[in-house]
Amino acid sequence: MAKAVVLLSGGLDSATTLAIARGAGFRNHALTINYGQRHRAELRAAAELARSLDVAEHRIFSLDLAGFGGSALTDPSIAVPTEATDGIPVTYVPARNTILLSLALAWAEALGAADSFIGANAVDYSGYPDCRPEYLAAFENMANLATKAAVEGRRFRIHAPLLTLSKAEIIRKGHELGVDFAATVSCYQATDAGLACGRCDACRLRRAGFVAAGVPDPTRYV
Amino acid sequence: MAKAVVLLSGGLDSATTLAIARGAGFRNHALTINYGQRHRAELRAAAELARSLDVAEHRIFSLDLAGFGGSALTDPSIAVPTEATDGIPVTYVPARNTILLSLALAWAEALGAADSFIGANAVDYSGYPDCRPEYLAAFENMANLATKAAVEGRRFRIHAPLLTLSKAEIIRKGHELGVDFAATVSCYQATDAGLACGRCDACRLRRAGFVAAGVPDPTRYV
Repeated sequence: MAKAVVLLSGGLDSATTLAIARGAGFRNHALTINYGQRHRAELRAAAELARSLDVAEHRIFSLDLAGFGGSALTDPSIAVPTEATDGIPVTYVPARNTILLSLALAWAEALGAADSFIGANAVDYSGYPDCRPEYLAAFENMANLATKAAVEGRRFRIHAPLLTLSKAEIIRKGHELGVDFAATVSCYQATDAGLACGRCDACRLRRAGFVAAGVPDPTRYV
Repeated sequence: MAKAVVLLSGGLDSATTLAIARGAGFRNHALTINYGQRHRAELRAAAELARSLDVAEHRIFSLDLAGFGGSALTDPSIAVPTEATDGIPVTYVPARNTILLSLALAWAEALGAADSFIGANAVDYSGYPDCRPEYLAAFENMANLATKAAVEGRRFRIHAPLLTLSKAEIIRKGHELGVDFAATVSCYQATDAGLACGRCDACRLRRAGFVAAGVPDPTRYV
């Protein structure tokens, strides 16, 4: 079985991505990054999902992006918006996916893996620049110049199987693959017990997705 | 004064790079990454160099790349080689410069800076793939698709002013710019007091560089 590194946040998208990687026959090494985001319930969710989706190994890697500031997800002084906004929202975290994919690349190389999975999505998403297909292609291109593995001929591939799916399509796919959505946390300001606010961008996209998919929404709201 | 993020390891190359950024008139934010490398003396050296080279701010950012393994610099069970080897040496750290530049990108974006400096060198170096000009160009291209700042028109630039210099040329340039080389640590296995082994790849390149530059070598060896 080929090894893969799967970025697992504990949200609905990354859980479905992990289920897809499992379905594709990879031996999965799940990587959760605790970067100082507010919603620590997500980290517990990630651990539960990793177990239920049969990973070979799950690592939680800590780094303090909160120290850099610049995002409502890491800076308590910036409020999480509860209405849709024009442009890129304040929940954007500077260079987040670049850092996550860089760490996935490092672990993949050390493991001897060529494949990494990320739940990036460019349809029902929040307008983050580092979720766009041209960004992911540029990262893959850079990665294939960066490593000893690439020089030796092991081509690094980023799989973003949700990239062109709507939130409803993601939910239907995860449902088919047996993802326990009750264990996922999407809310940007979930309580420590994992209750969702129901009002932030992530909650609104998730709730509308369940309605459109015709799948029962197991989310527990405050 | 425009702000810049300067990656500062505590070695001779990054110290010279910081001096060049200072000479170019940037207000410098020095970033030192403690990634579990063996030679902690380098971190103290970085702090001393940051002070002597007038940075606006110096941050030491910790992340545990040792947990991923795969390098003699982070894994005590892999010996640091004392003779030149063919190919990429075991001191290569998987995806290291990609992770360092990603963190520099994040901090630059949060600071409102467009410029980052790295002491990468493609002449008298150890054959690391992530020191090549084509790699740095690919990172810059990726970065300019990754961020909110780029979408808003602030182009991110990587400066690698040592890229095409020999070690002797780097030493002469640092000497002209007043870098205190006695404060720099290059050795892959320096003692906690900062004494160099004199035998590893980094020590051999450094020692030969001082000889070729005709600059007195202040390195303290064990």
